[in-house]
Amino acid sequence: MESLLNLSKDELKAKLEEVRKEYAEFKAKKLSLNMARGKPSPKQTELSYEMLNILDEKTNFNIDGMDARNYGLFDGISKMKEFFAKLLGVQKQDVFVGGNSSLTLMFDTITCFYTHGVAGCLPWSKQGKIKFLCPVPGYDRHFGITGFYGFEIIPIKLNSDGPDMDEIENLVENDEQIKGIWCVPKYSNPAGITYSDEVVKRFAALKPKAKDFRIFWDNAYCVHDLTEHQEKLLNIMDECKKQGNEDLPILFTSTSKITFPGAGVAALAASENNMKEIKGRYKYQVISFDKLNQLRHALFFEKNDIYEHMQKHAKILAPKFEIVKNALKEELGPLNIASWSNPNGGYFISVDVYSGTAKKVVELCKQAGLTLTSAGATYPNGNDPDDKNIRIAPSFPEYDELKLAMKLFCICVKLAAIEKIMKNK
Amino acid sequence: MESLLNLSKDELKAKLEEVRKEYAEFKAKKLSLNMARGKPSPKQTELSYEMLNILDEKTNFNIDGMDARNYGLFDGISKMKEFFAKLLGVQKQDVFVGGNSSLTLMFDTITCFYTHGVAGCLPWSKQGKIKFLCPVPGYDRHFGITGFYGFEIIPIKLNSDGPDMDEIENLVENDEQIKGIWCVPKYSNPAGITYSDEVVKRFAALKPKAKDFRIFWDNAYCVHDLTEHQEKLLNIMDECKKQGNEDLPILFTSTSKITFPGAGVAALAASENNMKEIKGRYKYQVISFDKLNQLRHALFFEKNDIYEHMQKHAKILAPKFEIVKNALKEELGPLNIASWSNPNGGYFISVDVYSGTAKKVVELCKQAGLTLTSAGATYPNGNDPDDKNIRIAPSFPEYDELKLAMKLFCICVKLAAIEKIMKNK
Repeated sequence: MESLLNLSKDELKAKLEEVRKEYAEFKAKKLSLNMARGKPSPKQTELSYEMLNILDEKTNFNIDGMDARNYGLFDGISKMKEFFAKLLGVQKQDVFVGGNSSLTLMFDTITCFYTHGVAGCLPWSKQGKIKFLCPVPGYDRHFGITGFYGFEIIPIKLNSDGPDMDEIENLVENDEQIKGIWCVPKYSNPAGITYSDEVVKRFAALKPKAKDFRIFWDNAYCVHDLTEHQEKLLNIMDECKKQGNEDLPILFTSTSKITFPGAGVAALAASENNMKEIKGRYKYQVISFDKLNQLRHALFFEKNDIYEHMQKHAKILAPKFEIVKNALKEELGPLNIASWSNPNGGYFISVDVYSGTAKKVVELCKQAGLTLTSAGATYPNGNDPDDKNIRIAPSFPEYDELKLAMKLFCICVKLAAIEKIMKNK
Repeated sequence: MESLLNLSKDELKAKLEEVRKEYAEFKAKKLSLNMARGKPSPKQTELSYEMLNILDEKTNFNIDGMDARNYGLFDGISKMKEFFAKLLGVQKQDVFVGGNSSLTLMFDTITCFYTHGVAGCLPWSKQGKIKFLCPVPGYDRHFGITGFYGFEIIPIKLNSDGPDMDEIENLVENDEQIKGIWCVPKYSNPAGITYSDEVVKRFAALKPKAKDFRIFWDNAYCVHDLTEHQEKLLNIMDECKKQGNEDLPILFTSTSKITFPGAGVAALAASENNMKEIKGRYKYQVISFDKLNQLRHALFFEKNDIYEHMQKHAKILAPKFEIVKNALKEELGPLNIASWSNPNGGYFISVDVYSGTAKKVVELCKQAGLTLTSAGATYPNGNDPDDKNIRIAPSFPEYDELKLAMKLFCICVKLAAIEKIMKNK
């Protein structure tokens, strides 16, 4: 195999025949495979089985002077505040423990600022056009929230050390309409990169034109290492405090990919000023979140060290990432039509296929029974300008399924690339 | 004892001395009692203990073709849709199963209409002044939500068969700024009344001036009977459908006072049109709610009939209501200074003390160690125009504590009344 780009028209034609045949064979298998979302596999959720019946009639429900079986403690139980303070690297008093979803905490925070404003400014809904920055490729559900409120989303190039800070500084420090930025600072979704110390420091030192500009720091993969090379993320809250900028960041995380997706516990961390706004809204929205589930988690992580627990996840996940990377390397490596990330953590491998073919690849896979994240999903409004990025989520399928899925994926990448190259010749 | 209103000034003075002495004796006891909120007692939450460890590694988590331990099924599992459909008297497809709190579902629905509108109308936030109707006395957390969004709240007199429908029809059918009404239609908070069939029918037949007027039907006490006299509430959704008005009501309930407060499951029911708006927002706010907790509830109520389960609650609760009513009758009955409700269900006894003394009574109780719901809390903006309504929540204290608390309460009611009557003489 050699670079497809060097082949003659006839050679390409022969290659196309060959790949089309392989594709037809796959299609005949009528597979049903899914690599669309970052879902832990059943084997991973089984790691937390002990938590299911960790509570019973003998449990001590007296928590923080309250009864965990009843209303109260609307910002969470102490033990879970401590748990998340450790995960996020913040003070316990800066933590608000919510329900089952950090996405909900983010949505609610944006909604709070949209209807009521922050930092004494007018509500965002009353400030005319609002803009948000999003490093790309990024997380489609982030775009979804800001899109729901009609904010204009400005894509920012994501480099291997984090988003392009020159561009961010230039935009944020000169445009009052820019009110926020979405960040997945560690093992980013989907690129898998961790922001460098310099990037974090430059975030902390931002001097936004808008007094009500906020950094939405979605630290979803804070303890989700895959390899022994554990990447270190500089503590944004500490850095912001050094700059007198502690109102800038709002931190989010959850145990969704630690215990049970959708049945975990989420939390946010913020400065006293931000917390005042956020709690000032939550006190009308909820009496208290599910403290029994908080207690389940607290008791489970008293018995199970979180870092050892995450190593068990890595042991299941890492071979899946290897399968994906090996397939890409073997099948596509020499062809010069694709590149991909090599993350040390998180849930995704980001693949750049031949420019202008991502939609086609996803469609070809779908027709042969493999569901992928939609092409473009990693860009605001689903619009990948180069139509080349595809997010691979290797976590859910079993090993054999994954091998099969990747074989099919690589065939589709080749097929779409050859067709495109021939067209361009 | 005879009516305090007939006593001479000297007789009142003697009486005052006597009651002050009783009050001082109570104060010396340094009690710490709480009848502020409608919290189930530990004995009640213990009724659901079986649910705590009903899930384990042997559970079948394959629900509706999905894995209950993972993301997905954002509108809830079928079994819980069926459970709530039965409770609310609606079709399964009209149910949306949420998280742990019906208050949150209400808050989110109001917020949805506030930021994005409903029925093709402009968002409420863009329609200038918005008004909401609230039958009074009512539920302070309802007032809290609409107050948070700055809506003007118009109190509506609550009669023994429901709110004053003449007034509601007159207002709703002539004022386009009126966008909604809060209702607790069964065993209302705090009055304990159930809307009559005629009231429900008149609600269903409303012809609101505002196309985007909605009835917020908080059926929090739908199965919360205290006595054998189970009051029947006419089915609002059926009645609305008969009138071609199925977009009018949005129904809410939860298992907070059935299983674990704060760790139960909440749901709403609405027409297809309303559901489209509500789900259209939730799909950005959450991936899925806690299906493991939904499954806990589903399995528990497969083994335990909900109505038998509620009878166990009633067996614990009813004697507490008797203690309160007996105390009121014995201590205050002949004095002509107070009246109170005699509910067949729900969580509260609504007491009207001598006009202009409710705040004083609550303060006196507080100083002697008994926390009550704030006087005025049952009225919008905390403003009870007659300063007479106090909400008694008898559920939480143990029997002996409750007897003590009621003794103190009655002393405070007498003390405040005598002082007031003497002042007026």
